[in-house]
Amino acid sequence: MKREANYTSSLDFNKGKVEMVHGSGGKAMAQLIDELFIKTFSNEWLDQMNDQACFELPAGRVVMATDSHVISPLFFPGGDIGALSVHGTVNDVAMSGAIPKYLSVGFILEEGFPLADLKQIVESMAQAAEAAGVAIVTGDTKVVERGKGDGCFINTTGMGVVPAGINMGGDLVQAGDKILVSGTLGDHGVAIMSLRENLTFETTIESDSQSLNDLVAAMVEVVPDIHCLRDPTRGGLSATLNEIAQQAGVGMQIYEQQIPVKAQVKAACEFLGLDPLFVANEGKLVAFCPEDKADELLAVMQSHSKGQDAAIIGEVTEDSLSFVQMQTAFGGNRMVDWINGEQLPRIC
Amino acid sequence: MKREANYTSSLDFNKGKVEMVHGSGGKAMAQLIDELFIKTFSNEWLDQMNDQACFELPAGRVVMATDSHVISPLFFPGGDIGALSVHGTVNDVAMSGAIPKYLSVGFILEEGFPLADLKQIVESMAQAAEAAGVAIVTGDTKVVERGKGDGCFINTTGMGVVPAGINMGGDLVQAGDKILVSGTLGDHGVAIMSLRENLTFETTIESDSQSLNDLVAAMVEVVPDIHCLRDPTRGGLSATLNEIAQQAGVGMQIYEQQIPVKAQVKAACEFLGLDPLFVANEGKLVAFCPEDKADELLAVMQSHSKGQDAAIIGEVTEDSLSFVQMQTAFGGNRMVDWINGEQLPRIC
Repeated sequence: MKREANYTSSLDFNKGKVEMVHGSGGKAMAQLIDELFIKTFSNEWLDQMNDQACFELPAGRVVMATDSHVISPLFFPGGDIGALSVHGTVNDVAMSGAIPKYLSVGFILEEGFPLADLKQIVESMAQAAEAAGVAIVTGDTKVVERGKGDGCFINTTGMGVVPAGINMGGDLVQAGDKILVSGTLGDHGVAIMSLRENLTFETTIESDSQSLNDLVAAMVEVVPDIHCLRDPTRGGLSATLNEIAQQAGVGMQIYEQQIPVKAQVKAACEFLGLDPLFVANEGKLVAFCPEDKADELLAVMQSHSKGQDAAIIGEVTEDSLSFVQMQTAFGGNRMVDWINGEQLPRIC
Repeated sequence: MKREANYTSSLDFNKGKVEMVHGSGGKAMAQLIDELFIKTFSNEWLDQMNDQACFELPAGRVVMATDSHVISPLFFPGGDIGALSVHGTVNDVAMSGAIPKYLSVGFILEEGFPLADLKQIVESMAQAAEAAGVAIVTGDTKVVERGKGDGCFINTTGMGVVPAGINMGGDLVQAGDKILVSGTLGDHGVAIMSLRENLTFETTIESDSQSLNDLVAAMVEVVPDIHCLRDPTRGGLSATLNEIAQQAGVGMQIYEQQIPVKAQVKAACEFLGLDPLFVANEGKLVAFCPEDKADELLAVMQSHSKGQDAAIIGEVTEDSLSFVQMQTAFGGNRMVDWINGEQLPRIC
């Protein structure tokens, strides 16, 4: 049900700004909720207007994942913080093999933030949620004084349902597993850094920001015994492989020549002094599966629109030191260590 | 399972500061997660170290609620942002009649924030979670540059399970229902405002920040047909009553003399120019129940340690204009409107 609005005038989405009063719990906040959030995200759960959403779930395993988004700038080629905040959490849920269903959203807005920008972000979230088949069912808005925030921060938390028989986790990865990636690496991080550095190329490098739950569903249907899925976001492929190597107590061997990277991204990385292996992705996944299922899994991925450039990039090895090593294009082997320094701040 | 740590030295929780690198997805972030979050929040779900938590739920209704916390200052009499962030979301879940079970946490930290303060906040969250019987099962940490945040913002999102037969919501409130509150109003907001304004009193006014899920469980057991519970946080009792009046299409009549307010809070409100009805609470609830169950419900509340000062403060009326009215101590009737201005910024 909708609240009976009795506001003196509608919000001005052309020239209006976020004010402290929009976070105060009074009438101004109710108006922002009614005229922007409820209107744009409308669904049967959110429309109940309670301080929490209530839904029916079947018995079984449920997955919960959370992500705060502080990306700067808020709008970038290939997306914005709104779409990204949906994709990021949908993907974190999907990486367990679960089907993402419900999202919550928490905004922290800075006083003076243009309502026009907020509207664009909220509409982008709604589109991303619809495309991924999830509903934004509950939310919260806080406002901080000018200079105490940075425009717009967004937390999204997601819930999903794990199909029976699916069991994935970093600790299930074992020596002999093949390592696959779903497409080209580094697109998101390089798109953001190019924008920040005002780099221009013949064609704009776009973020790969997208939801992967449909790709995961297709993969799981054909190869239900995938051992682990992970999206290589902050820290890139390198952080993901090192994390899982330590979690599972194994090593990894990858092959530089098999890792898909767009020529333009490679060129930009050289210019910016970045390594594509350390750069964040927002629409790619890494999969670990039994060796004898790898070709079948690769075929499924390549036949999906979001996995056309998928590749087998290496294998899991026995290694009590949990080293990740890469055979370079020149034939040598080098360690792929975690980044220790601050490579790409506020990339998501 | 725990990650095999191979950090060169432990984090310095005495003099260390949050650095940009703690949000970069690399080794420094992993160290912060290992040495602070996992260590303090440790539970079977979080310890799996995946990007999402997975747990079994029985079939039935599940509730999800989210809250971002931007309170200033971070530490205050009666609590801190850590405990508050657990209480706030536990209460939002519990207000549906659900049993809160799992929380996610998302930190947005400002570069330079003292690790000692972060540790204190995290330990406070862990204690609050344990006291409420909930587990913090998954999390996320972001860091923003100095001047782009304000020390520490915390989002918590909670999940709970609704017992069979319980059905509550603002839209279920109906004319004739009695309105009860669980205790004195205004404590939290006045504690924070007194601190900001450097007011001192003979005894310090403390925030009422606390989890109410045990009180709710006791209430629901005796009166399962409570129509609605709501915690009067931002905007205070006034915002809560107006929200529900509009949601249910009813009016409300309350009686000033029956509303419990501590003498000291009343005095501070007069000094600060505040009205206790508009001031935030973080450990109180408002209940709407059928008239013939009100005395029974009041007795249950008063016999619980968190409801000793509970009172019946009024009743729901038929009113197509959804007015909330209060009979004052002098016998007159006045409208209790929503606050429209910025009364108490960053109160939670």
